[in-house]
Amino acid sequence: MGNSLDRVLTTIRPLDETAMAAARARQDALTKPQGSLGKLEELPIQLAGIQGKTMPQIKTKAIITMAGDHGVVAEKVGNWPQEVTAQMVYNFLRGQAGINVLARHVGARVVVVDMGVATELKPHAELLARKVAFGTKNMALGPAMTREQAVNAVETGIDIINAEAAKGLDIVGTGDMGIGNTTASSAVCAAITGEAAEKVTGRGTGINDKQLKHKIAVVKRALEVNHPDPNDPVDVLSKVGGFEIGGLAGVMLGAAAHRIPVVIDGFISGAAALIATALAPQLKGYLIAAHVSAEAGHQLLLKHLGLRPLLDLGMRLGEGTGAALGIFLAEAAFRILSEMATFAEASVSERIV
Amino acid sequence: MGNSLDRVLTTIRPLDETAMAAARARQDALTKPQGSLGKLEELPIQLAGIQGKTMPQIKTKAIITMAGDHGVVAEKVGNWPQEVTAQMVYNFLRGQAGINVLARHVGARVVVVDMGVATELKPHAELLARKVAFGTKNMALGPAMTREQAVNAVETGIDIINAEAAKGLDIVGTGDMGIGNTTASSAVCAAITGEAAEKVTGRGTGINDKQLKHKIAVVKRALEVNHPDPNDPVDVLSKVGGFEIGGLAGVMLGAAAHRIPVVIDGFISGAAALIATALAPQLKGYLIAAHVSAEAGHQLLLKHLGLRPLLDLGMRLGEGTGAALGIFLAEAAFRILSEMATFAEASVSERIV
Repeated sequence: MGNSLDRVLTTIRPLDETAMAAARARQDALTKPQGSLGKLEELPIQLAGIQGKTMPQIKTKAIITMAGDHGVVAEKVGNWPQEVTAQMVYNFLRGQAGINVLARHVGARVVVVDMGVATELKPHAELLARKVAFGTKNMALGPAMTREQAVNAVETGIDIINAEAAKGLDIVGTGDMGIGNTTASSAVCAAITGEAAEKVTGRGTGINDKQLKHKIAVVKRALEVNHPDPNDPVDVLSKVGGFEIGGLAGVMLGAAAHRIPVVIDGFISGAAALIATALAPQLKGYLIAAHVSAEAGHQLLLKHLGLRPLLDLGMRLGEGTGAALGIFLAEAAFRILSEMATFAEASVSERIV
Repeated sequence: MGNSLDRVLTTIRPLDETAMAAARARQDALTKPQGSLGKLEELPIQLAGIQGKTMPQIKTKAIITMAGDHGVVAEKVGNWPQEVTAQMVYNFLRGQAGINVLARHVGARVVVVDMGVATELKPHAELLARKVAFGTKNMALGPAMTREQAVNAVETGIDIINAEAAKGLDIVGTGDMGIGNTTASSAVCAAITGEAAEKVTGRGTGINDKQLKHKIAVVKRALEVNHPDPNDPVDVLSKVGGFEIGGLAGVMLGAAAHRIPVVIDGFISGAAALIATALAPQLKGYLIAAHVSAEAGHQLLLKHLGLRPLLDLGMRLGEGTGAALGIFLAEAAFRILSEMATFAEASVSERIV
């Protein structure tokens, strides 16, 4: 492994139990029946533990949306042409895609990264051009990338989060764009969780029954041809992953090293989280699952990660759209903890026990 | 019935199908796979139909939080003293309760109304003092209020939404405060849906098994003593309802008459919606269910209303806290429709069919 990856893996600390206990004590004294805000009560405790502060703060927010292409599109696993990946990157840069709208709505900046789009992209002041290669190779025929490229992808993600953390960042969301990347994510999910391809392969952007059968067969073939080693997450990433998946894994690891909470988006971010938590199990405490997507296998993936999703809106767009909504809820929860009065402060009677 | 209630009932129009079709056509042309934003795609179509505009707008937002006391607390149905209703109203006016925090987070003003708190409240510039009476009577012994008071409560809600609409209001959320009001809401729900008290009576702010059994018995007794007529919603409200429940029903009816979408909160707002939609079935199209609360019976109540909740966060605080989060999602959905580029605008290739 590379230097910066090794270093990050040893830097991630367990959550701060003292800060969590103090946050919980305040939470329990707020003017409402204990537990009456449901999941919004668990979140600020987790945020306190991550940031290591009794009163966590959320001011600066970012969504990091990483784009990459996938050689497996040669197997005709979906309905959209590969050129859409690049076109959507331009759409992100113009501020007119779904993620731009939702990120604006929650006050988060969007960081757009070319991790491996198959075409040369025009330079743009807001595009981070960090292409590992011009798309992965077709995993149905052999490894998607070399081991060096896999490490490079993860370390690029670490670099990017380091730079964002230096600008000021209290919470980060992950997002993806890449035609073919649900196929790669299904293969990563099957390899790491040991589940059958049938259980973790879904309809992506919307394929029919016959196409789904074919997609499952392609995932199976990729696993048979490459034999990814479930005990070696970098091997899984290199054999059946993607550059944006590796980059997002790096973002998650790097964020945890900086004690920044990570709101993960849907199925592709989930695949990245499987790789990242396999590298550093203590990362799990830093992750917040924004939503369970409509993509088959996501529920199972989250269960494997031990995460309970906040939302279930039937979304399956990716880009970080679910993560943006998750950031809103995390901020709501943090504000509850910091702005609500306690019973004593408000002179409200407590329950008769 | 009173004059303004009669008038409102004949004013509510069906949703605007032309506006909905135009909104749907734009939605389907946005740069994302159709349906990939799940429930966020249905919402702006509904908003278009309600506002009667192809491009609905959400700028001004309010949560109307109504407080009232309940004579049934004499039966010891919960763990909190009645004085908490008044204390929480003061907490709302200081801006330090859960609803204040979440309303600020979504940019909505909070309108606090005394519909029938059992004690005299100190005047406050931001408190609407519209007390119908000093709390309802104990419904386990006889009617909670007179028929005139019930009509008065609903018409007060209509008055209040009329005044808010005059100030400018694009979307409204409903909220409640009232020690004992889950008991009244369970009785309303049982009376209107015909479900057994056991199925629609829950733990409110947190009672144990023995207390729940007692609470169910009280709901049953209130129904037996009063025989509310399910075909006469004002009769149900007067026999087993509450002043804040009647007021919220009025808010919903009045909002629909102004073509303002209504985001309903939890179980108590749901009981108000049961009464309001029984008075005007065409109101249903104007309602957005923010969330399914942890209160037993809420799921069943929403099913009876034909509404699918947006969120399931295990919340059960009331005050309008769930409605605030629902307003955020409605605004997110409206911004998707108005700010995202279409395939043609963004020069993105469409799917290969």
